[in-house]
Amino acid sequence: MFRNDYSEGAAPEVLSALVATNDEQSAGYTEEGDAHSERARELIRAACGRDDVDVEFCVGGTSANVIGVTGLLRDWEGAVCTRDAHINVHETGAVAACGRTVLPTDDADGFLTPEAAERVWRFQTSTGRHMTRPGCVYISNTTELGGVWDRARFDAICDWADSHDLPVFLDGARLGSALTSPAAGGLTLEHVAERCGAFYIGGTKNGLLLGEAMVISHPRLRESFPFLQKERGGLLAKGRVLGVQFEAAFERPADGGEAIYWRLARSANERALRLRDGLVRMGFEPYGDSPSNQQFFVMSAAQRDAFEAACGCETFYKLGEDRVVARFVCSWATRDADVDELLELAAKLA
Amino acid sequence: MFRNDYSEGAAPEVLSALVATNDEQSAGYTEEGDAHSERARELIRAACGRDDVDVEFCVGGTSANVIGVTGLLRDWEGAVCTRDAHINVHETGAVAACGRTVLPTDDADGFLTPEAAERVWRFQTSTGRHMTRPGCVYISNTTELGGVWDRARFDAICDWADSHDLPVFLDGARLGSALTSPAAGGLTLEHVAERCGAFYIGGTKNGLLLGEAMVISHPRLRESFPFLQKERGGLLAKGRVLGVQFEAAFERPADGGEAIYWRLARSANERALRLRDGLVRMGFEPYGDSPSNQQFFVMSAAQRDAFEAACGCETFYKLGEDRVVARFVCSWATRDADVDELLELAAKLA
Amino acid sequence: MFRNDYSEGAAPEVLSALVATNDEQSAGYTEEGDAHSERARELIRAACGRDDVDVEFCVGGTSANVIGVTGLLRDWEGAVCTRDAHINVHETGAVAACGRTVLPTDDADGFLTPEAAERVWRFQTSTGRHMTRPGCVYISNTTELGGVWDRARFDAICDWADSHDLPVFLDGARLGSALTSPAAGGLTLEHVAERCGAFYIGGTKNGLLLGEAMVISHPRLRESFPFLQKERGGLLAKGRVLGVQFEAAFERPADGGEAIYWRLARSANERALRLRDGLVRMGFEPYGDSPSNQQFFVMSAAQRDAFEAACGCETFYKLGEDRVVARFVCSWATRDADVDELLELAAKLA
Amino acid sequence: MFRNDYSEGAAPEVLSALVATNDEQSAGYTEEGDAHSERARELIRAACGRDDVDVEFCVGGTSANVIGVTGLLRDWEGAVCTRDAHINVHETGAVAACGRTVLPTDDADGFLTPEAAERVWRFQTSTGRHMTRPGCVYISNTTELGGVWDRARFDAICDWADSHDLPVFLDGARLGSALTSPAAGGLTLEHVAERCGAFYIGGTKNGLLLGEAMVISHPRLRESFPFLQKERGGLLAKGRVLGVQFEAAFERPADGGEAIYWRLARSANERALRLRDGLVRMGFEPYGDSPSNQQFFVMSAAQRDAFEAACGCETFYKLGEDRVVARFVCSWATRDADVDELLELAAKLA
Repeated sequence: MFRNDYSEGAAPEVLSALVATNDEQSAGYTEEGDAHSERARELIRAACGRDDVDVEFCVGGTSANVIGVTGLLRDWEGAVCTRDAHINVHETGAVAACGRTVLPTDDADGFLTPEAAERVWRFQTSTGRHMTRPGCVYISNTTELGGVWDRARFDAICDWADSHDLPVFLDGARLGSALTSPAAGGLTLEHVAERCGAFYIGGTKNGLLLGEAMVISHPRLRESFPFLQKERGGLLAKGRVLGVQFEAAFERPADGGEAIYWRLARSANERALRLRDGLVRMGFEPYGDSPSNQQFFVMSAAQRDAFEAACGCETFYKLGEDRVVARFVCSWATRDADVDELLELAAKLA
Repeated sequence: MFRNDYSEGAAPEVLSALVATNDEQSAGYTEEGDAHSERARELIRAACGRDDVDVEFCVGGTSANVIGVTGLLRDWEGAVCTRDAHINVHETGAVAACGRTVLPTDDADGFLTPEAAERVWRFQTSTGRHMTRPGCVYISNTTELGGVWDRARFDAICDWADSHDLPVFLDGARLGSALTSPAAGGLTLEHVAERCGAFYIGGTKNGLLLGEAMVISHPRLRESFPFLQKERGGLLAKGRVLGVQFEAAFERPADGGEAIYWRLARSANERALRLRDGLVRMGFEPYGDSPSNQQFFVMSAAQRDAFEAACGCETFYKLGEDRVVARFVCSWATRDADVDELLELAAKLA
Repeated sequence: MFRNDYSEGAAPEVLSALVATNDEQSAGYTEEGDAHSERARELIRAACGRDDVDVEFCVGGTSANVIGVTGLLRDWEGAVCTRDAHINVHETGAVAACGRTVLPTDDADGFLTPEAAERVWRFQTSTGRHMTRPGCVYISNTTELGGVWDRARFDAICDWADSHDLPVFLDGARLGSALTSPAAGGLTLEHVAERCGAFYIGGTKNGLLLGEAMVISHPRLRESFPFLQKERGGLLAKGRVLGVQFEAAFERPADGGEAIYWRLARSANERALRLRDGLVRMGFEPYGDSPSNQQFFVMSAAQRDAFEAACGCETFYKLGEDRVVARFVCSWATRDADVDELLELAAKLA
Repeated sequence: MFRNDYSEGAAPEVLSALVATNDEQSAGYTEEGDAHSERARELIRAACGRDDVDVEFCVGGTSANVIGVTGLLRDWEGAVCTRDAHINVHETGAVAACGRTVLPTDDADGFLTPEAAERVWRFQTSTGRHMTRPGCVYISNTTELGGVWDRARFDAICDWADSHDLPVFLDGARLGSALTSPAAGGLTLEHVAERCGAFYIGGTKNGLLLGEAMVISHPRLRESFPFLQKERGGLLAKGRVLGVQFEAAFERPADGGEAIYWRLARSANERALRLRDGLVRMGFEPYGDSPSNQQFFVMSAAQRDAFEAACGCETFYKLGEDRVVARFVCSWATRDADVDELLELAAKLA
């Protein structure tokens, strides 16, 4: 149950919207004549507080990262990121497959720091044309280890990027969890939209069947994106499938309440934090300090096996012969009862 | 209504399957532990009459084409295809974006002929390393103009490809329509699977929300595909979305009848052929001779405007100042009443 | 002897310069501190009549074409050129290897016409993001068949390119021969430099051991070139080798006469035209109408064999069972006696 | 004078060969009919003790690295190398520009160790298709810091590579210096040729105007190389320029003595080691322990400035405010008197 946040289908409201609109006819490719994609764009622009950005729908995270990052880079440029960045280690060289380079820093905890980024900048610009030139900054929120950027930290890296005239690309596969985390520290969607050259709002891991909404303010990427999306194989004929879902996720309910995108993320976070607090109380050792929907704990292989068999989890790292980092992920679909069940088991294993 | 075959959502049976399985938990990426993807693979292998092929699920046609074609080619090789081939004109240079070349013949009607392919072969191999070497053959069924390959024609190009040791890649975005067409002339899925190095069974244009099922027998592509799919951004985290749908499409009903994939395609064809016959009887001039779900007619701009306003169609080519080719597409969702309505209008315009 | 214009080493003056400067120490990579490269740049800028262009030295024609063309194109753009263009047929997909597309017109004689280019433009921009967008124009002077652009023809294609805001890239592997041809019709190096976004002055085929001098005015390519040249493997450590040779080729003699670059080219042209006139007088049929250092003649296979055995030539095309196009190339190294010998043989074969 | 080993032109014997053969006519592209390239191939095969390898001539190191490394890798594979490897830091992302990935280890001294390589292997193969798969091993001899592989160390990494079925690619830009170094410890050209899938014998930095000779035994690269060389822009029309030089470098003198390639390298090493010993005796601190033609010393900025002004050197690293690593390079052209002059200056600075 805690294996990941993409085990189930869609959140009920999202699925209902797909069912309800199924027989309507829409134009293809999320283009003009697809009223749902158009409405979703409007809602997302409003949520971002900007009407001067493009909103485009991607099929998944790797596709979004590849189009976004390589669209911001010229052939001979690279993306500055942490060494554990998804684009550096988990995407099978997708950035290189488009001819661009990843420039990892020595940051160890998933947060890109201005100091480490500056070291990369100095090194990469030390011999002119003989080195890949930094061309953008890549960060993710949440980070690979569930870390959540607060506003101060986020502004610091954006300031650094600005000082070198580099656009910031933010991978928001779990942006919902990040921005609804108690650790968000004043970081809002509006602020992200204000400072990033491009970023995406992840749907796959927050209640959609699939889909990420890319918000683009950088002029070069605004011009390139439509073509790159087709060229990189990331454009759906039935674009409506993405439009309908994002519309459902960002439409405000009649009572003026919160759009379900945020409610789903908040729900995942709450379960995850209850899970964390429970395990910590029982003496399990957290790995890192995630305030978001993914929780990481150090344990023996036997404990991991017991958890895995009973309620699903994933081995994230092997630390030693008999010490592993296990990952427990909550999603919109995780119920309180699921957490209870896990904690009961944990009590026995502790 | 006749604008294209990806205007609506999913066929009812497919949508029901998504709803029914929504709360189940499945492993990600269509991998082991996703029972629906596994079942869909089994069903497709059975339908192909081969258990020695890999079946992989792609997000869409361009993604499938890019992964398949570039996975069959080495860096310095190209795909022999007709000049109107989708990969040559409608995919924004996606093959080149992966460093490979498209080698168009002078075939004018969408069917790749051994004679024209041989001319390309001779030319491209005439100066050794100075020219892109042909590395695979790309065909589509149906063709860009709705043409349907019969078995003799298909075997001829496969024989030619065999004689040069080139694998055949078949773009089957509309393979359902092709194989259920009265013009299929003995060409079966089993035979396609027997002769192609790789091909795909299109879902997007035949009743799925999205998805194409790639059938791979070529050893090099079997090995490469999983990595290439991730690297090219074409791997869904919720792979289940594709597995569930293809399972629904290829599961045989309890009464032993036809899988709905074929029934949906047949339905689209029947409406399209009734539409064609009606228009021909009224004196409209068909463009080409499509026996599949897309129909092309030459008409005046005013006629096209009238059709477009009343029931949706697309301008495929401009032939002259006031002569256009209009395309009318039927899908699983097209009803007899829709065809009636179009024919009534046509009677007035004729 | 007439096989091609890259059979020998360097012209004597160029070789002498290499020998004379051999023991000097120069900075690497043609960069600051390499006085010969700097002087060569100055001379070429002066010959072009522009001091606002960058001059960079490439190892050969394919390298120059790849860096220049792909540096002018964004990922999703293509180069409009004739179907027989070198980048389309003779460079093993080098443009595609850098992720870009070649967009051939139907021009049949090696000269790109505004009419054919406009047809490509209209087609490629007819469905928006679904097609590769034209991003630059590629022409070569001389053309593949030895054709020479005169000023009017050159201005026509440049005007067309300007009207679509496309930079013109000119492949000048044989620019010396072109500009010294009697058919140049007022086209000068200054005028080429004024209108092209980038072009190169070929050295390999006009008396250098190797090397092409790229002249760049397009702002995007000026910025990219140094990095792209390294990234594409086209930057020599001993850049001096190129600088010394181009300096020798473009330095004006003490008596104020013509730089040897032009003298060498003129010499090749004169021999070639004498060869042409001789063959024509004897009744041999020219293939096309080349006024430059390459001459093409239709003949029987037996005649071709006789020429090939006696004085070297190349089979350019096979026209039929016993009809071929043979190519005879003159270079700076071709002597009058060589032409005499060939014409004597021709007299026997005619 | 000690700035680098590519400041001058060619060694006298090499230059003489270019002059002596200048007027001969040879076929292009180092292909059949170019007797000098053919002879050079024979000589190099004989020196390698293998007649089952291909020998191909490249224009420079980056071109050779790119063609060799990317020719050994499939699209989704990467080259395991040290973090300071030339392909990782000094070639402007050239491997990525061809769609492949560089996989650096944490080895700090330029020698790739089996232990560090194994860590990369384990990590990169830990999540299947989600990570770039190691596809070859890249090492250089000498290393970036002038290190020289002895036979035991070389066999250890080759054994490791064999155990994972990975071909070894050896960048031999300074292979002459490495194999004639007193530290070569039994490593011979024959042994390198026996164990590497491909490697090159550097000419640019050992007395040629330009050129590297690639020796290829790996079947995939043997097939691909000719095409890739053209496609990557690395094929010279006047291939003779490379053939003539390598022939001169590897032809044995009439008296049965050593080919000049080895004599030139030995000469550079001897000067470099005398320089090293002199500086060490005076108390200068060597940076690393180079037994080859490059020497690295830690010193103050003022000392570096004095050396630079008087006899040329390069700042390799900045270690701190006033501590730098200076590089002194000897070549075939360095004379004893040059070393004397440097040591005299050093005595004053020490």
